[in-house]
Amino acid sequence: MLGEFALIHRFFDRGPARRAILGMGDDCALLEAPARGNCMAISTDMMVGGRHAFDDVDPAALGHKVLAVNLSDLAAMGAQPLGFTLALALPQADEAWLGAFRTGLFRLADRFDCELIGGDTTRGPLNACVTVFGQVSPGAALRRDRAQPGDDLWVSGALGAAAFAVAERRAGRALPEGHPARERLERPEPRVALGVALRYLAGAAIDLSDGLAGDLGHLLERSRVGAELLWPAVPVAGALDGLPEAQRMRLALSGGDDYELLFTAAPENRVAIEALAAPLNLPLSRIGRIDAGDALHVVDSRGRTLPWSASGFDHFV
Amino acid sequence: MLGEFALIHRFFDRGPARRAILGMGDDCALLEAPARGNCMAISTDMMVGGRHAFDDVDPAALGHKVLAVNLSDLAAMGAQPLGFTLALALPQADEAWLGAFRTGLFRLADRFDCELIGGDTTRGPLNACVTVFGQVSPGAALRRDRAQPGDDLWVSGALGAAAFAVAERRAGRALPEGHPARERLERPEPRVALGVALRYLAGAAIDLSDGLAGDLGHLLERSRVGAELLWPAVPVAGALDGLPEAQRMRLALSGGDDYELLFTAAPENRVAIEALAAPLNLPLSRIGRIDAGDALHVVDSRGRTLPWSASGFDHFV
Repeated sequence: MLGEFALIHRFFDRGPARRAILGMGDDCALLEAPARGNCMAISTDMMVGGRHAFDDVDPAALGHKVLAVNLSDLAAMGAQPLGFTLALALPQADEAWLGAFRTGLFRLADRFDCELIGGDTTRGPLNACVTVFGQVSPGAALRRDRAQPGDDLWVSGALGAAAFAVAERRAGRALPEGHPARERLERPEPRVALGVALRYLAGAAIDLSDGLAGDLGHLLERSRVGAELLWPAVPVAGALDGLPEAQRMRLALSGGDDYELLFTAAPENRVAIEALAAPLNLPLSRIGRIDAGDALHVVDSRGRTLPWSASGFDHFV
Repeated sequence: MLGEFALIHRFFDRGPARRAILGMGDDCALLEAPARGNCMAISTDMMVGGRHAFDDVDPAALGHKVLAVNLSDLAAMGAQPLGFTLALALPQADEAWLGAFRTGLFRLADRFDCELIGGDTTRGPLNACVTVFGQVSPGAALRRDRAQPGDDLWVSGALGAAAFAVAERRAGRALPEGHPARERLERPEPRVALGVALRYLAGAAIDLSDGLAGDLGHLLERSRVGAELLWPAVPVAGALDGLPEAQRMRLALSGGDDYELLFTAAPENRVAIEALAAPLNLPLSRIGRIDAGDALHVVDSRGRTLPWSASGFDHFV
């Protein structure tokens, strides 16, 4: 078995740092200060064996996902990725596993020019923790607490596919590899370019990790506002076609792992926001309105409130 | 049992950020750019249940240690702490455990004015991952690759106490709580003030996590130099008094968890370095010399090479 230092060197050290002043191999990495007028945006996410579909999934997909969920947090802030650290606990140093994990990780990192600048490895139950660094001007950051009554409510992409893949697996009908819904679950696409494009167009934003209703709830709470969500306007993933309406609603509104951006914007920005969809090759749907209340109402096309209890995914309940 | 969001709020959210522009509760934290002329120093360390004496130890000590080992990495770079993130996997949300962990964590954080700016919690085998951020001028950073032939080799504090505590526990003679060696193992003191003071005095530096010989080996390798280490000059912790010489040597040279700083400096800086000891209340010992070779020689007071094989602690061997 490879020793720790040989392992780090062989799988994760890609030679001299590109953006970082000093990359792996010292006590700390040194990262240049963000561009003038910018601050550092920082997020950390941990994925655990078993819990996050870790053990039975392609390690390349895991390498992708643990970075993707962090990049998605940068996207939700409107931040441009700079670099990341990776801490990894492994039951053993399995070279085939590490090789695949590394491939998935670096393929995504390179697409977003986000450099691995440091890390830690230890023996233990499978656990991967990424901390990601980006830059954004503090005034342009898409904070959760910036929603205003009268704002439109928008969401990118289509919802529910990842939750559908989870539901099928739980029902003993795991989707075949390559199925679009399974791809969505295992290889979410962080909406970094959208986040950056929204810097001066959107008010508040959040990425959808725990489900639309629950994550919208966080945004409303932080902004101390309410919202009316128009269910027929919610973009539902094609994988849910043909399912009963109640199930479509449950998967699209409270299914997790979509990693789309939910954001608010003043109505005068509608045209500018709609104009982003084509260059980003990403549907952007206007799905409701922020109001001065303190609750989330899900309504049908006639404005009638649908029976719906908002609840996101909670790791400890 | 508390839900995830209630748990984070109750135990880790201390209200509006002090240094950070935006602290916990959003997709990312926002941290002001480092002071002009400085860069960000970043390190990450993961501690795993069982592996790092996690389960049978006071959770307050664990809260201390997981941050201390990261602050020690900043110290070894000469960086001033700014903030940190914490990702925590827990088998269950045990309030007593969390309360104690939190106390140990924040007590240390506050002493170093290092703010918790964000985090993640999930259910899983016990695992704590801290990523720490500091600032230092890139030219003043104490890199591992800056040792020069002719430099003195220095170490802070005294070595071997933590390794002694581990050895006693393994032998079924766990030291009582409060014993200085056990305190050393459970509550290491990051040498942050020393690191900052050494910015313009030291060449290379590394913190001692895996043992003097092994960590010195990393420094020599990165600097492409050798060293002569004078064993009688190595400061050995009082807890090792009376042990056989071979055991003292093993514990002080290859025992881990000391978290002292090992550093090199030009001989003309001797007086300036010695003058730091009193104000820092920390012994600083000159223990050898860097040479143009490629090996580490441990010698006695007559310069005779002692039979010694350098080997640090390796998590995967």
